Amino acid sequence: MHREEYGESEDCLGTVEADPQDPAPAARDAMPKDALGAARRSALLAALPAAAAESLLARGTIRCFRKGETIFVQNEQARFIHVVLDGWVKLYRMTESGSEAVIAVFSAGQSFGEAIAFLGFPYPVNGEAVADCRLLQIETRAFGEVVRFNPDCVEPILSAMYHHLHALIVQIEALKARTGSQRVASFLLELCDVSKGRAEVTLPHDKVLVAGRLGMKPESLSRAFSRLGRDAGVRIRGNVATIQDVETLRRFSVRDPALAWSRSG
Amino acid sequence: MHREEYGESEDCLGTVEADPQDPAPAARDAMPKDALGAARRSALLAALPAAAAESLLARGTIRCFRKGETIFVQNEQARFIHVVLDGWVKLYRMTESGSEAVIAVFSAGQSFGEAIAFLGFPYPVNGEAVADCRLLQIETRAFGEVVRFNPDCVEPILSAMYHHLHALIVQIEALKARTGSQRVASFLLELCDVSKGRAEVTLPHDKVLVAGRLGMKPESLSRAFSRLGRDAGVRIRGNVATIQDVETLRRFSVRDPALAWSRSG
Repeated sequence: MHREEYGESEDCLGTVEADPQDPAPAARDAMPKDALGAARRSALLAALPAAAAESLLARGTIRCFRKGETIFVQNEQARFIHVVLDGWVKLYRMTESGSEAVIAVFSAGQSFGEAIAFLGFPYPVNGEAVADCRLLQIETRAFGEVVRFNPDCVEPILSAMYHHLHALIVQIEALKARTGSQRVASFLLELCDVSKGRAEVTLPHDKVLVAGRLGMKPESLSRAFSRLGRDAGVRIRGNVATIQDVETLRRFSVRDPALAWSRSG
Repeated sequence: MHREEYGESEDCLGTVEADPQDPAPAARDAMPKDALGAARRSALLAALPAAAAESLLARGTIRCFRKGETIFVQNEQARFIHVVLDGWVKLYRMTESGSEAVIAVFSAGQSFGEAIAFLGFPYPVNGEAVADCRLLQIETRAFGEVVRFNPDCVEPILSAMYHHLHALIVQIEALKARTGSQRVASFLLELCDVSKGRAEVTLPHDKVLVAGRLGMKPESLSRAFSRLGRDAGVRIRGNVATIQDVETLRRFSVRDPALAWSRSG
């Protein structure tokens, strides 16, 4: 560990250019201690052998993106593997006809792009900051140099990929075999930090993005909220959902197999 | 290569027990030459270093499953990595409420379970033969012994996983940003071996499974077929689709962004 290698920055959002094509030299020096800690605790780096993780940290750059900024573009050659230190990142596909499909939303501690960095593939998705965020970017070449011939790195990388694979499988299950209202119920339950009784959760994004994550039109999300109010004791005000009873909501999220194919439920 | 290690079997479907819990000794000797060739040409084995591929082949078992047979069950400890030699395999999830969600359908040359074999994880899905099929099964332990400390095996395994990941991303895009009719159109185009003019394709599965792959109710699939007949020059008779003009169908499959959120289109 070479903590002295990292400089200090007052406010990353204020000091680092957010153009990924031309990293400012300043960005390379800026690795505030809180970011270093967040990076070390990320699922990928925490699972790698310590020496490999520190080597990646020493070669990584922290970059800050403002809400709405593009991080990378679908089909462009992957230049970085990304670790989210704080904020939210949306990965999405654009169809040929110009529609957007949200594939995943990542938050602090999560990484993405491990496989394409290793394989040298283009990004299969677009990346966009959906809140101001700080990302650790590790160049694909640096990543390859550190992990390629280190057998102890293989399992953590495969594990990170499997995590992505599993999340997509669960998402497809939800899209195919649950109603929209059930998907909203599950989403609220994921945000919930208690397992029974009353709870209050804050929606982490605006309703258009919540709808996109769940594969619904914004107006379908509104209808789902109404249904949850009627049948599952959930009240939405602004971006706060009040859940009268978590157990009731959980039952709602898994019942109703007859409606499972219906998109309107 | 040690071809002499493999025995010959007349008809795998007739001679090999299909109980994965208790492989019959006969199954271990049965590696007919056509199966050997099919296994070697599979995406995973063809990408592995030759010595590793042959070592896996020597440790693999061919097993035959009849249409409708269960190959493995969700959440059970993964015992095998699978390579499809012929036939079709469906991977699906069961929701808590008992609904089925088709995650993927694999055919000859495709493999699955690479990551969970390496990581020792349970199967995240159920596996079922949806046509009589022959599978090469490689025990997870044998797979680990051959590939774990061979750096030249890492890229092919990551590549196989990335292939799965990419297919799931494309599927989520289709579920979220295309109408049911557009998904059916894309499915027919995938089966098509010409890029323009008239074409005839045979549906590879019954319509319930086609609907499940595309995230539709069977009755929605029927409506989509009607719409394709009306608007895109496709006629379905039994399990054969006649496409009047492939280019017209392709335009249909990508147009209509305004309908992209509509599940009924």
